[in-house]
Amino acid sequence: MKKVGKQSYTLTNPVNITSTASIVGPKEKAGPLYKYFDQTLEDEFWGENSWEKAESKIIKETVNMAISKSGIASSDIDFCFAGDLLNQCISSSFGLRETNIPFFGVFGACSTFVESSILASIAIDGGFATNVVCASSSHFCSAEKQFRFPLELGNQRTPTSQWTVTGSGSMVLTSSGTGPFITTFTPGKIVDMGIKDANNMGAAMAGAAEDTIVTHFKDLGRDETYYDAIFTGDLGYVGKDLLLDLVKGDGYNIKNIYNDCGVLIFDKDAQDTHAGGSGCGCIASVFSGYIYKMLQEQKLKKVLLVATGALMNSTSMQQGESIPGIAHAISIEI
Amino acid sequence: MKKVGKQSYTLTNPVNITSTASIVGPKEKAGPLYKYFDQTLEDEFWGENSWEKAESKIIKETVNMAISKSGIASSDIDFCFAGDLLNQCISSSFGLRETNIPFFGVFGACSTFVESSILASIAIDGGFATNVVCASSSHFCSAEKQFRFPLELGNQRTPTSQWTVTGSGSMVLTSSGTGPFITTFTPGKIVDMGIKDANNMGAAMAGAAEDTIVTHFKDLGRDETYYDAIFTGDLGYVGKDLLLDLVKGDGYNIKNIYNDCGVLIFDKDAQDTHAGGSGCGCIASVFSGYIYKMLQEQKLKKVLLVATGALMNSTSMQQGESIPGIAHAISIEI
Repeated sequence: MKKVGKQSYTLTNPVNITSTASIVGPKEKAGPLYKYFDQTLEDEFWGENSWEKAESKIIKETVNMAISKSGIASSDIDFCFAGDLLNQCISSSFGLRETNIPFFGVFGACSTFVESSILASIAIDGGFATNVVCASSSHFCSAEKQFRFPLELGNQRTPTSQWTVTGSGSMVLTSSGTGPFITTFTPGKIVDMGIKDANNMGAAMAGAAEDTIVTHFKDLGRDETYYDAIFTGDLGYVGKDLLLDLVKGDGYNIKNIYNDCGVLIFDKDAQDTHAGGSGCGCIASVFSGYIYKMLQEQKLKKVLLVATGALMNSTSMQQGESIPGIAHAISIEI
Repeated sequence: MKKVGKQSYTLTNPVNITSTASIVGPKEKAGPLYKYFDQTLEDEFWGENSWEKAESKIIKETVNMAISKSGIASSDIDFCFAGDLLNQCISSSFGLRETNIPFFGVFGACSTFVESSILASIAIDGGFATNVVCASSSHFCSAEKQFRFPLELGNQRTPTSQWTVTGSGSMVLTSSGTGPFITTFTPGKIVDMGIKDANNMGAAMAGAAEDTIVTHFKDLGRDETYYDAIFTGDLGYVGKDLLLDLVKGDGYNIKNIYNDCGVLIFDKDAQDTHAGGSGCGCIASVFSGYIYKMLQEQKLKKVLLVATGALMNSTSMQQGESIPGIAHAISIEI
C-alpha cells in the first residue's frame, strides 16, 4: 500500500474481484440492463410476507450466489462487509445471519457497496484477510414505506425524485487471481451542500462526488484521459448533470466517459422513473451485473467506480436539516 | 499481523490508544462513574431544540475533545470510523460532517465502538493509516422515541429492559506511542438465539458474546487467567448472568474478572434503571472514561473489551422476527 496525495491509496497487491452476483426485482427486469443480472424476480415479495423479508432474502441469495460462483468454501471467507438502507441495516443482519462469517456492518447509505469494498481491500492488502465478501441491497417498497409515503396512497412523485432499486449486488474479493483488480481507492469526506429536499438526492450528493473524483485525480496525477469509464451511483439524471458542471468548473471534462448507475438501470421515459434509480442495491447490482461483465469481456479496461450516499433519515428531514453527502471511489482495472 | 486460530488476529505493531474522550448526560452524571467522564451535561438537550441534534452535538464535541487531547492536527487524521443507533446513523453523519476527515460509517448496533476500533486497527497495522479517530454515541430520549414509546406517555418499563445511555466515547488510535495498546482482536459472527423480546436485549446478545469470548480464548490459547478484566457492553444484569452461565458451560469461569459496562454505569436501585445501561454510547463512554483511565493508572494491565450489538429495528420486532446478536472483541494491554 502507498498513500498518494491527500487521501488516495494504491494497493501493493491489487485486490482480485473473483466473482460477483446480482439479483434484482421486476422493474429492473423491465429495464435496459435486464440481461446482465444473474436473476430477476417476478414480483417484489419473492414468496415472503413482507418487503423487508424479501429484501433480506435478496441479499442472502445474492451473497450465496457470489460465494458459490467463486468456488471458495464459505468457511474460507474471512470477513463479510455489508449494509443497506433499512433502519439499523436489518436487511443485511437478517439476510446474512446464517452465513457464519465474521461480520462487519457498514452504513454509507448508497455509498455502502464501495465503502465495503474499500474496507475489504484494506483488510486483504494489509494481510488480514485472503477472501472477503461484500454486499449491499435496497428494495423499492421497503424504502418508500420507510422514507416517504405508504405505497397504497399512490402519491405523485416529483420530477427530481429517484426510484429505489429493488436488488442486491455482491462480490467476493481475494488476495490473488486473474482480475479484474481493485488497484486504488479514495475514501470520501462528508460534504454538505445545504440541499434540504429529500426528493432531490442527486443534487445533495453531487458535491461529494465532485470532491472525491477531483481529489482522486489530483492525488494520483490522473484526469479523464486515464479511465475508459467513470460510473457514479446513484446521482440520477439531476445529479449527473450537476456533477458534470461541477467537475468542469474544476478543469476536468469527463462527459464522454461518464455515466451514472441510476441513469443506466431504468428507461426514464418508458418506465416513468423520473430522475433515475437509487438505493444501495443500484450501484451494487449494476456493478455486479453489468460493469463487471464489461471488464471481464475487456470492453472496459480502466473504470473508476464512485458510490455516493445521502446521509439523512426521515426525522432529520422533518427537523429541517440539510442532507450531507459522501462519495467513495475505487479504480478497477484488468 | 498474524491470524490465529479460526477468527482472531494479533497485531504486528500493536495499535496505540493515544487519547480518549467522553461526554455523558445527566443520568450518567448521577451514576457511580460520574467522576471519570470528561464532561457531564445538565440536561438532555444541551442547548439544542431536538434530542437528535443534542446527540449529534455530543458525538461532535467528544470527537473534537479526543483529537484535541491527542495533540494531533485534525488534518493529520487519516480516517474516521463512527456510528450510532439512530436510523441511518444520522448522529454520526450530522455530528461529524464538519471534521473534514475521510469518513467510514459503521453499523454494529451497540457493538459499533469496538467494530470501529477493529477496522481502525486493520487500517493502521496494514499501513493504510497513521492516525485514526473512532467514535459512537447514543441518547436515551432519541432512542426511546425511535425504538419504543413516546417519553411523554410515561410507559412502565419491564424488569429486563435496559436504559439507553446518553453519551459518547471517542478515541484516537495511532501507529506508535506508549500505550495502552490494542494487541489482538476477534471480530464476531451474527448469532441468533431466537429471543423475540425487544425489552430483553441482554438475553438476545449473550450468545454472541459467548461465541466471541470462547472463540477468542480458543484461538489464542488463553483463558480467564490471562486477563485482569473482561468487560462486555452492554449485556446489562440479565445478559451478564446469562453469559456467566454460558461460558461456564464451555469450561471457563470468568466470574471474578468479568463485568458489564451497562451494569457499571448506573446504580440499579437508586436510579431505577432495571437491567442496566445500553446503547452505542455505553461501552464507548465507559471505556473512554473509566476503563482507559484504569489502564493508564496501571490498575488494569490486560483487558478484553467485548462490545455486543442487537441487530434489529422496530419494524422487525413488529413482524415477529427474533433478534440477531453480534459481539466484537479487542484486547488492550499496557
